[in-house]
Amino acid sequence: MTQTILISEVGPRDGLQSINMVMPTEAKKAWIKAEVEAGVSEIEVGSFVPPKLLPQMADTAEIVAYAKTLPGLDVVALIPNLKGAERAIAAGVDKMSIPFSMSETHSIKNVRKDHAAMVSEIRAIAELVAAQPKASRPHFEVGLSTAFGCTIEGPVAEDQVVRLAEATIEAGAAEVGLSDTTGYANPQQVRRLVRKVKAAIGDALLNTLHLHNTRGLGLANVVAGLEEGISTFDASLCGLGGCPFAPGASGNIVTEDLVFMLEAMGLETGIDVEKLLQVREILRQALPDEPLYGFTPDAGLPLGFERAAA
Amino acid sequence: MTQTILISEVGPRDGLQSINMVMPTEAKKAWIKAEVEAGVSEIEVGSFVPPKLLPQMADTAEIVAYAKTLPGLDVVALIPNLKGAERAIAAGVDKMSIPFSMSETHSIKNVRKDHAAMVSEIRAIAELVAAQPKASRPHFEVGLSTAFGCTIEGPVAEDQVVRLAEATIEAGAAEVGLSDTTGYANPQQVRRLVRKVKAAIGDALLNTLHLHNTRGLGLANVVAGLEEGISTFDASLCGLGGCPFAPGASGNIVTEDLVFMLEAMGLETGIDVEKLLQVREILRQALPDEPLYGFTPDAGLPLGFERAAA
Repeated sequence: MTQTILISEVGPRDGLQSINMVMPTEAKKAWIKAEVEAGVSEIEVGSFVPPKLLPQMADTAEIVAYAKTLPGLDVVALIPNLKGAERAIAAGVDKMSIPFSMSETHSIKNVRKDHAAMVSEIRAIAELVAAQPKASRPHFEVGLSTAFGCTIEGPVAEDQVVRLAEATIEAGAAEVGLSDTTGYANPQQVRRLVRKVKAAIGDALLNTLHLHNTRGLGLANVVAGLEEGISTFDASLCGLGGCPFAPGASGNIVTEDLVFMLEAMGLETGIDVEKLLQVREILRQALPDEPLYGFTPDAGLPLGFERAAA
Repeated sequence: MTQTILISEVGPRDGLQSINMVMPTEAKKAWIKAEVEAGVSEIEVGSFVPPKLLPQMADTAEIVAYAKTLPGLDVVALIPNLKGAERAIAAGVDKMSIPFSMSETHSIKNVRKDHAAMVSEIRAIAELVAAQPKASRPHFEVGLSTAFGCTIEGPVAEDQVVRLAEATIEAGAAEVGLSDTTGYANPQQVRRLVRKVKAAIGDALLNTLHLHNTRGLGLANVVAGLEEGISTFDASLCGLGGCPFAPGASGNIVTEDLVFMLEAMGLETGIDVEKLLQVREILRQALPDEPLYGFTPDAGLPLGFERAAA
């Protein structure tokens, strides 16, 4: 089991794109800054989608520019396509991630591209990345979404995920991640699919799981992922977010609960969970009508709890 | 990993003792019957505590008598002491379980007995059990409560848990279980403590975990327990319950989410999760003011979900 775990905060992107309210730019900046001060070292700060599609993400370039000024932070943005990649590169992201839905039906509904078209798009983006000067070349990751099942198609064949992971790497992506967009995954399936994909593309090219807590299994799936050597987990402060295009899919795993669990297990996240819990106040004030999730925030830390790194 | 998992439903005891309302006897019977019809084969139906202390449990003898008429059900009752054991045996339980708090402070607060007094009580109960005719001799289990930490003492030394587990078996108990009464446990701790206790008393004498979801880690801890060969998990329908004497400790793991997870993992619980979800309606009607928990009930089963045994 890896001893140092990277938490990639996705709330400013996945969380905010899922709610109707547009969070003011200054509140986004305060949120990101406060997480960095709590020790978070990677944040997906926004999405380069057309503003008319997701007005919540219209200020992403400004947010990227701000986040780049924060010390020790890797700034990630989601991109839907080549056009988004161009904007992300122009904004100066450290890393960009495109979702590639393993369910072809979901892919067509979500971004109007079948699997072949998505692989072409990934290849074009990889070529664009490769053409950048090395100093400003972002890390390009592909998130294999609906990898554990789809709310439209139902089960997604594992062989298909493996095949598309191979095609993604062959097309030039630096890395793939597995996303349980729909909250369908179970720990046995996580172990099996991680193992299969790693066997196909190599151990070093799959490090990230993006898990949802839709059916309460989010952290159980993290445990399974840890055992297969996964070292990066996406999570969202207050459990904000899900996928707006996958009906019924709600609830990223809660960053606070994840950090508590990992630190309690003796793994190092670099995050001060007490400071992290205080960041919730920013969301409470900026999103007064949104329910904020999390068990650890409600229950408090155990009496005598000590951080792994303390 | 064990392929067949026993779910021990503790809602009618742990759930109902934690709420103020007294559930009518007929509603308790309907609940228990409906769970048996969904395939649940072990239910902790009540507690032989003094009725003036917990009026919610005053009808336990009647509930035991009723539950004994249901085919294929092991009827469990909680007992606080020798007096409770006598009543449980008179009522004809199949199994009785006494909580033994690993935190001495909690033990004294909860049942006014220090550790030495508890071991004496366990020995007296074991002798009473041994004196029964073999046909009506109940299985006598000791639940090592606050085994993963205490809301009053904080961390509980693992060596102390191991030592008291040994003393419990030496005193004549048939089996011990580990209880995370306070919701402090994490998966690494579960693995480590299960391993240590098994090493001390033998693999066959620790089969059960009683986990809470206070900090959202309940199912993650189940996964850790499964890996250490644990084959029985307590859970409560709708997540009712906690420990009324451990402040801040709330929330048994939710039976519905647990069954969904295990069946999705390909493990056999013998329980039909769709039928189980329907049992919630009985609680909704009988306890109209209680919040009912569970992620899977809210989200529904995944599209195309198939039971392990189907």
